[in-house]
Amino acid sequence: MVDALGAPPRKLRVGIGDDAAAWKVDSHHLSLLTTDMLLDGVHFRLAETTASALGHKALAQNLSDIAAMGGWPTVAVIALGLTPAVDETWVREFYRGVAALAKSARCAIAGGDIVRAPALIISVTVAGEVRRTRMRLRSGARAGDVAAVTGPLGLAAAGLKTLGAGAAVVIDAGSLEAVRAAYFTPQPRLGEGRYLGSQRSVRALMDISDGLSTDATRMAKASKLDVVLDAAALVPDRALTTAASALDLDPMDLMLNGGDDYELLAAIEPRAFKHVADGFRKRFGRPLAALGRFAPGDGRVWIDRLGKREAVAPAGYDHLNRA
Amino acid sequence: MVDALGAPPRKLRVGIGDDAAAWKVDSHHLSLLTTDMLLDGVHFRLAETTASALGHKALAQNLSDIAAMGGWPTVAVIALGLTPAVDETWVREFYRGVAALAKSARCAIAGGDIVRAPALIISVTVAGEVRRTRMRLRSGARAGDVAAVTGPLGLAAAGLKTLGAGAAVVIDAGSLEAVRAAYFTPQPRLGEGRYLGSQRSVRALMDISDGLSTDATRMAKASKLDVVLDAAALVPDRALTTAASALDLDPMDLMLNGGDDYELLAAIEPRAFKHVADGFRKRFGRPLAALGRFAPGDGRVWIDRLGKREAVAPAGYDHLNRA
Repeated sequence: MVDALGAPPRKLRVGIGDDAAAWKVDSHHLSLLTTDMLLDGVHFRLAETTASALGHKALAQNLSDIAAMGGWPTVAVIALGLTPAVDETWVREFYRGVAALAKSARCAIAGGDIVRAPALIISVTVAGEVRRTRMRLRSGARAGDVAAVTGPLGLAAAGLKTLGAGAAVVIDAGSLEAVRAAYFTPQPRLGEGRYLGSQRSVRALMDISDGLSTDATRMAKASKLDVVLDAAALVPDRALTTAASALDLDPMDLMLNGGDDYELLAAIEPRAFKHVADGFRKRFGRPLAALGRFAPGDGRVWIDRLGKREAVAPAGYDHLNRA
Repeated sequence: MVDALGAPPRKLRVGIGDDAAAWKVDSHHLSLLTTDMLLDGVHFRLAETTASALGHKALAQNLSDIAAMGGWPTVAVIALGLTPAVDETWVREFYRGVAALAKSARCAIAGGDIVRAPALIISVTVAGEVRRTRMRLRSGARAGDVAAVTGPLGLAAAGLKTLGAGAAVVIDAGSLEAVRAAYFTPQPRLGEGRYLGSQRSVRALMDISDGLSTDATRMAKASKLDVVLDAAALVPDRALTTAASALDLDPMDLMLNGGDDYELLAAIEPRAFKHVADGFRKRFGRPLAALGRFAPGDGRVWIDRLGKREAVAPAGYDHLNRA
């Protein structure tokens, strides 16, 4: 279907296939544009979330795409399809969630469209900017680069599973709060993306909201390499260990395939990794976690367990639920 | 609900309430952003349209909002919610319709999002630019200004009615083609918007896709004036007369309330109107039709029939179908 669109205008620097579209505005800056559509029953369940958390998350997903380009957001527009099931109070709470995150991200909300719909639909589009020299694509990784992520994985997926399991599952309050907050109110890594984009040794960047196995495969394919993850480096967060144990789930599966982690995956020149990671920890108070290396290959992800390599299938979120 | 968003950042020049959002990029230009959501069964019927016409129209609606700001489009992103009822061929045809209009409008299509949905959903967002001095809002009209439109009204609404009436209605082929083309493949008035924005005597501009009665009321309210339309100036196009007669509909009702007319409504300084209209006809080969005048008031629309004024209720399209 992309073929039918023909050649894009020359000014379009990044089109279909990266986290956001990018085009030149002047010799130093590019404009960014990204959009996401969320549906009740497909991407969330109205009965399981609050309106303000949903507003937060709908915006966060798009901000994460801007972060993944090394950019910052400027303006968002929101198209809502509303059913009679949501009243004016709900809509106000939804916008309150949007507005709180928008404020902290310094992003203006500039209106949009509201229509009647048979199911609740949220379509958010965010415009942003990035300095030309600081934009990073999925395709820039080189063999030998360190594959690193900006935060813990699998928490959001565990958070979602606690909803299905209901009150039957006993998880300590702190861990439950951590996994549910990761699911309901993810924090887009805007500061982290801008910092990583400012480092010349960071060669590729993307968000991993569809799950590490799926998104690392995408970066590997775009960079025409393989990624070899080190099993020993995939250490579950304490809250994930607790929640996964209570839910009788494999934490490694949640980390690799769970999705909804609004962290960034970076490919970093190996000699510079320590320097970049030290600066990261100083700024954000969290580690930049090295998970493995890029290696010559053709777009596959491997996991290395004590020297033995196993292939990792992309088992995260696919937008068309293809087999 | 808008209150909950708090004060927008200083750079945002136009927020919620005009055709598109606008914010400053440099001392001479503003960026524009507009979004629209279309649903099967609400805004169109899948069975009644072709995929390429739907692609054309979905983009045209957003381009019309850019035209209404006096701007030009740069990049569009499209989020699609697809049901099993549409196959890959359908999606390819949809994009072909999008691409053909995008090309003629010099707008890049830069990807978007595709999700599975219970009903076909199309959410298009277009980014654009406008010279600061050429942007026109809804609120700039002054008492005495001429209210003028860029093209014929009511054709699209008649075109829609021919679908409901099926093959039973006999309309000559030329008129049928004209009203159906107006409905299925409306032409956004981008050149017209830029020309009108370049004229200092054009004080306000908006599109009238929700119907003249509704949109003229919006411009009147935004400008804190009334609009008095001259019944004698509301001359139905020949194709509209033919179609309305065959369908047993009132052409005046279709012109005032039909909606889906992607024409622009302008408020023009009276002394300059002839000059602007002459330039318009020379450029576009069509008249800029004067329909009436802005007058002191509080946001109402009137129609003057031989000196007798009647109030015109906003009976066009309301996005929440409120009574």
